[in-house]
Amino acid sequence: MIKTINIIGSGNLATQLALTLHKHNFTIKQIYSRNKINAEILAEKINAKATDSLTKLYPNVDLIIISVTDNALQDVINKMPNTNAIVVHTSGSVNMNILNRFENYGVFYPFQTFSKQHNVDFNSIPILLETKNPNVNTELLKLSKTISNNVTNCNSEQRGAIHLAAVFACNFTNYMYSVAHDLLTSKNIDFNILKPLIKETTSKILTNNSNHPKEIQTGPAVREDYKIINKHINSLEDNNYKNIYKLLTEGIIKMKK
Amino acid sequence: MIKTINIIGSGNLATQLALTLHKHNFTIKQIYSRNKINAEILAEKINAKATDSLTKLYPNVDLIIISVTDNALQDVINKMPNTNAIVVHTSGSVNMNILNRFENYGVFYPFQTFSKQHNVDFNSIPILLETKNPNVNTELLKLSKTISNNVTNCNSEQRGAIHLAAVFACNFTNYMYSVAHDLLTSKNIDFNILKPLIKETTSKILTNNSNHPKEIQTGPAVREDYKIINKHINSLEDNNYKNIYKLLTEGIIKMKK
Repeated sequence: MIKTINIIGSGNLATQLALTLHKHNFTIKQIYSRNKINAEILAEKINAKATDSLTKLYPNVDLIIISVTDNALQDVINKMPNTNAIVVHTSGSVNMNILNRFENYGVFYPFQTFSKQHNVDFNSIPILLETKNPNVNTELLKLSKTISNNVTNCNSEQRGAIHLAAVFACNFTNYMYSVAHDLLTSKNIDFNILKPLIKETTSKILTNNSNHPKEIQTGPAVREDYKIINKHINSLEDNNYKNIYKLLTEGIIKMKK
Repeated sequence: MIKTINIIGSGNLATQLALTLHKHNFTIKQIYSRNKINAEILAEKINAKATDSLTKLYPNVDLIIISVTDNALQDVINKMPNTNAIVVHTSGSVNMNILNRFENYGVFYPFQTFSKQHNVDFNSIPILLETKNPNVNTELLKLSKTISNNVTNCNSEQRGAIHLAAVFACNFTNYMYSVAHDLLTSKNIDFNILKPLIKETTSKILTNNSNHPKEIQTGPAVREDYKIINKHINSLEDNNYKNIYKLLTEGIIKMKK
């Protein structure tokens, strides 16, 4: 059973994971960060040791969670000591096999956006697990279910699809809000005026259990109201925004058919 | 003071408006719809008369609300009897002057998406007013404040900008959810897995009072993580989705600079 854990990383996800696991009575032995001060800030909150040297990582723990940027992952893995611990990474888009120099390994991907300041409740956050070894799977399932009600096994291909879908559903929607903000402030209108509409649009998606989002699509594109569509395109001064408007409108019209 | 009202239209917004105004003790005299049955269904709920003939519209009311599709608006206006009532339309994108054959006119634009089934609480819905005549403005303000806490005067240009911003912030985001749904179901993954992330993304926007949405942008584009960006583009089979991914990624990278 997993009791002792090292965490490699001190970013948003590493921080939230460390706090949550500590709260659920797992013992975090060590926090590693390239930046010793960041490691110490986090380690202090959970009675762990801090280190900025991967070679000084204790190998004798039950689990090592590597939560660093995708680009740093290979380098971290190369520099880690040998260990019998279960070693997991937390990335949505990196294949599990990057960890195959270890005896026991897997992917532990909490599917949410994190910030250091805003403490999250892991309970409702989906955790996506991937493992090769059934024993490792049993151990990671047990730990995951301690902190979340929403744990699923999925393979690297599915995890990739989920990550890609999230780029559309979250990163790109945030960018849409950003464009809307620009359009309003250029006419001296407060972005807050949009909030009730944003709230209702999202609420329809979140409570809509059976239907495809395309069935609740509204707006000039789905009505093929070319009078308004052309008026909008002409009124957009920024060429990028014009192109986005055209492409997404075409997409919505195509989606209907 | 406005006491008696006719409503032209029986669509989503007309329905919600009629129910709300009736609840707040305004007297709805008549509901017009091209389709008599639709007019009757709504009229019955609020003790009004139904008609499918614009020439039979009673001119002797205080307010006539025209809530039809933008394309039907001109034709409806042409066929209406002369009246001293205040006549308003409820469109986000049609100029107020379309109503200038009447004595007293304006725009009454409740800024929200509506469906017939889902009864909305008008209280928090922004109502955007435009008028030329100060007396008309006073009357419409009084009525609007009875049903909403969020009433603003704005001109046709500003209303156009708000409507355009809403296309980005609501119609296009719903389309992003639709694309995400397609990507997931093509790999046999339930769309529900995205919901906690969608909820958190929106909640950050709704509670973020001071910052531009670009300051909370996350994902591979804002990190300029070309390894993942290229992987995503290659994995998208649909050419439309590929183009959307590229264009929005470029937009996010440009927005940073």
